[in-house]
Amino acid sequence: MDTAEATALIADMGTRARTAARIMAAAPTAQKAAALRGAADQLRDRAVAILAANATDMARATAAGLSPALLDRLRLDDARLDAIADALHAVALLPDPVGQLIDTRTPDNGIVLSRVRVPLGVIGIVYESRPNVTIDAGALCIMSGNAVILRGGSEATASNAALHAALTAGLLGADLPADAVQHVDQPDRAAVGALLAANGLIDVLIPRGGKALVARVQADARVPVLAHLDGNNHIYVHAAADPAMAQAIVVNAKLRRTGVCGAMETLLIDSAYPEPAALVTALLDAGCTLRGDDRTQALDPRIAPATADDWTTEYLDAIAAVAIVDGPDAATAHIAAHGSGHTDAIITADDAVAERFLATVDSAIVLHNASTQFADGGEFGLGAEIGIATGRLHARGPVALEGLTTYKWVGHGTGQVRA
Amino acid sequence: MDTAEATALIADMGTRARTAARIMAAAPTAQKAAALRGAADQLRDRAVAILAANATDMARATAAGLSPALLDRLRLDDARLDAIADALHAVALLPDPVGQLIDTRTPDNGIVLSRVRVPLGVIGIVYESRPNVTIDAGALCIMSGNAVILRGGSEATASNAALHAALTAGLLGADLPADAVQHVDQPDRAAVGALLAANGLIDVLIPRGGKALVARVQADARVPVLAHLDGNNHIYVHAAADPAMAQAIVVNAKLRRTGVCGAMETLLIDSAYPEPAALVTALLDAGCTLRGDDRTQALDPRIAPATADDWTTEYLDAIAAVAIVDGPDAATAHIAAHGSGHTDAIITADDAVAERFLATVDSAIVLHNASTQFADGGEFGLGAEIGIATGRLHARGPVALEGLTTYKWVGHGTGQVRA
Repeated sequence: MDTAEATALIADMGTRARTAARIMAAAPTAQKAAALRGAADQLRDRAVAILAANATDMARATAAGLSPALLDRLRLDDARLDAIADALHAVALLPDPVGQLIDTRTPDNGIVLSRVRVPLGVIGIVYESRPNVTIDAGALCIMSGNAVILRGGSEATASNAALHAALTAGLLGADLPADAVQHVDQPDRAAVGALLAANGLIDVLIPRGGKALVARVQADARVPVLAHLDGNNHIYVHAAADPAMAQAIVVNAKLRRTGVCGAMETLLIDSAYPEPAALVTALLDAGCTLRGDDRTQALDPRIAPATADDWTTEYLDAIAAVAIVDGPDAATAHIAAHGSGHTDAIITADDAVAERFLATVDSAIVLHNASTQFADGGEFGLGAEIGIATGRLHARGPVALEGLTTYKWVGHGTGQVRA
Repeated sequence: MDTAEATALIADMGTRARTAARIMAAAPTAQKAAALRGAADQLRDRAVAILAANATDMARATAAGLSPALLDRLRLDDARLDAIADALHAVALLPDPVGQLIDTRTPDNGIVLSRVRVPLGVIGIVYESRPNVTIDAGALCIMSGNAVILRGGSEATASNAALHAALTAGLLGADLPADAVQHVDQPDRAAVGALLAANGLIDVLIPRGGKALVARVQADARVPVLAHLDGNNHIYVHAAADPAMAQAIVVNAKLRRTGVCGAMETLLIDSAYPEPAALVTALLDAGCTLRGDDRTQALDPRIAPATADDWTTEYLDAIAAVAIVDGPDAATAHIAAHGSGHTDAIITADDAVAERFLATVDSAIVLHNASTQFADGGEFGLGAEIGIATGRLHARGPVALEGLTTYKWVGHGTGQVRA
């Protein structure tokens, strides 16, 4: 597929998505929820075909030498299909943001002005190997009244097509347009380029994947992007931290799952914290590699020297950088200099110090006495997430249904003309 | 100034703005308001110097042959300076959005999660000939706790520098950093290019000016943009509209001021509306040129035939397109096909028809029985506006202080670790 063909393909899909978006924007909550429940039934009915399609993808990916980690992301089985179907039911139960009243005011002119939530319109989602994103992202877009064009990883083409067919059947079964969720089946990259250039056709692009994908989307997109960048997350253990709590949170934040964006990557220990050696020993003994500044190296001979790069690295592995800092201001200065604005936490029993930290650190999520691994839409009570936004415009942190809406101003007058 | 010099200049300004932004984000409301009131005093104290600088710009612009309309935009006088100072006092009285609690939830994990408003960070504003934007935009950025880099029109360089100096003096007088409002004095366009490319230094760019400026910013920016595009606004006069109200609103919406973005550009008259001839006659008699479809041409011989372009044109002049439509669905279909999503209105005494129109038309502002000329932050009770956003991400419609903020998630735990 050359550029012109890709542009024509996306133009056609975008036009059909716009038409579908108008219908989705007006669809009642019950109808959207019925589409999702119908899609869950379809997933179960079509399980054999979906797993066969996935087996095709797996065989091709194995032959192409994909890493075990990528193969695991690509793989579907009965348990994973069940989890995907359960997620559809969960999204169907979420409160519908469309039509929600944000606020109302009546200025001196007497026009009653309200802000009412409406869908964003047409969303493009570019993602990598996990086929469950096809359903998860499609479901969130349906429930928020949008139309979406999905472009999954080329290694998951057959799986995505089979999952997408279930979603389409769910839509049609609820008398909603199949074009509300379209999937770009072409595996070549020209289609991604055309999506990124589809200004006016696509209202917002959401990349879901590794750094290279997000960086390409941010660099090339002519369409607004809701992006998820690095989570170089810090935990600052203050002088007044309870040592047992600090140790439990730090080990959990680093090692519960090392590959998630909410994992702690740098540990900052206050120089007045009473038990620094026990804290680093707990991490080291649990299998974590530590790279530290001079003062932390003195705590344990297993701590290697940190280079400048360590303070900005998102390891996504059982590795952490560790530094001793002299007080809360030094901690927040370190985070301001090296952090990525994702999730940062303080452990302290001193509420005043905690409040100052929470106010000063300019990150999407700031936590007091809790593990950074809670950075997740489900854990935040949003029911799901389409990603964690690290930009500053529109939505910040975990993005779920509300983040897929905008608002309009609705004004009721009685014949007002402007003087 | 070549590209490298411009890049270095903006990198330096951006770095200083980031430092200032951290201070502004923590500044109490009273301190920010004091800076604005101090700047208003400075404007009055420096009036002679400011008007002299403006006279220099005016002489240069006159010699360069600028149009009378552009010269009028550039011109300052005592009355206009007073109005600018009054605007500073008005912004100083607005509610401070920073620190506002948006919502709070406590999910099953027991972490108390709140969304709290915080400033966007570093804002870039690129504008054209009106020097008052230097103060208006600077004031809104200060009051919302941001830092801003202003780049005004090259023809207003001396005026902008003089106005900017008053704002800086106001900041310093309130112990706030002068770098919170910086102005790019270099008149050449390389500085604009560097601003557009300043990804990571500038959090959001706001273009304020004509179509060519906004289009350039949207095409070239590597930074998120909050843009104001066309206002191709419609008024649909429904069959059940009160004729006196319809006539008053339509004439006001088109002719009160023809150059504003809220002006009506297309009039849609329902084929069942009882007095279409009187409606078009009122516009024609008031000096408006009308371009209509076949059925409207039959109403009055002064109505010229409309071409396809007329349905999408923002005239910003005493010209309107006019069409007869068969019912509300035809009206909303016309708006969906040709509108720009800015401001559209319905005139009707039938509330059910009005509600359907307001729900169906996907524009930033939808109005019932009111003139489209109310599309304005001041009229909406926002106290001011930095622009009217026609995009769908972040803010939509009039943007004032709240639109210059984002939020962060603040979580209070009691030692939670994730299972």
